Amino acid sequence: MAISTTETHYFIQGRIWIDSDKGPFLGFGRIQLLKKIREYGSISQAAKSMEMSYRQAWQLIESINLKAPQPLVIKTTGGKGGGGALVTEAGENMIATYEALDQAFLEFLEMKSKELKL
Amino acid sequence: MAISTTETHYFIQGRIWIDSDKGPFLGFGRIQLLKKIREYGSISQAAKSMEMSYRQAWQLIESINLKAPQPLVIKTTGGKGGGGALVTEAGENMIATYEALDQAFLEFLEMKSKELKL
Repeated sequence: MAISTTETHYFIQGRIWIDSDKGPFLGFGRIQLLKKIREYGSISQAAKSMEMSYRQAWQLIESINLKAPQPLVIKTTGGKGGGGALVTEAGENMIATYEALDQAFLEFLEMKSKELKL
Repeated sequence: MAISTTETHYFIQGRIWIDSDKGPFLGFGRIQLLKKIREYGSISQAAKSMEMSYRQAWQLIESINLKAPQPLVIKTTGGKGGGGALVTEAGENMIATYEALDQAFLEFLEMKSKELKL
């Protein structure tokens, strides 16, 4: 492997998630799933778009709904293969809360990367 | 599984690390390794205390030294099984820089956890 003699650049990276005393609640992946359900109005199509099984997606939604103050996703129709689904108002608020938090975190990382003197 | 009717408490968790354009540079685990080398003056004893092999520890140190502006750890004696090692002044400064960053991140997480309204 060639060793570069050019100066190395450093930056701070990270990830955050909302935890709860009932276990992990919401992180980047679960928020993506909520947004895909909002986009498609369907858990199975949302799951497919994220290359996960319907079963995986539904287990994530159940985990989220169980820990949330109110359900974030509800099924609008039942039936084989999963019917329609929608993100509730509580779900919309949760997406907005997470995105504001994520934005604040990105700003923190950017500020700390600029301050970094190595 | 019993569903608790008590209120759920939420908090923000996360992790950060220093990345570089030459690849991952320093995170919590590597800083722990530096601190253990400082404590024991030996890579093999530091490795043992962290339940990793000498080879693993040395590969981490090589990766760190290659990406750092100056070496953070130097061997003071050679020989089979690894001789003495010490954390350089640059290494001490790096530990201090990382710990200040980590402290600022903990304060960010605490502040955002308090602000969280779900």
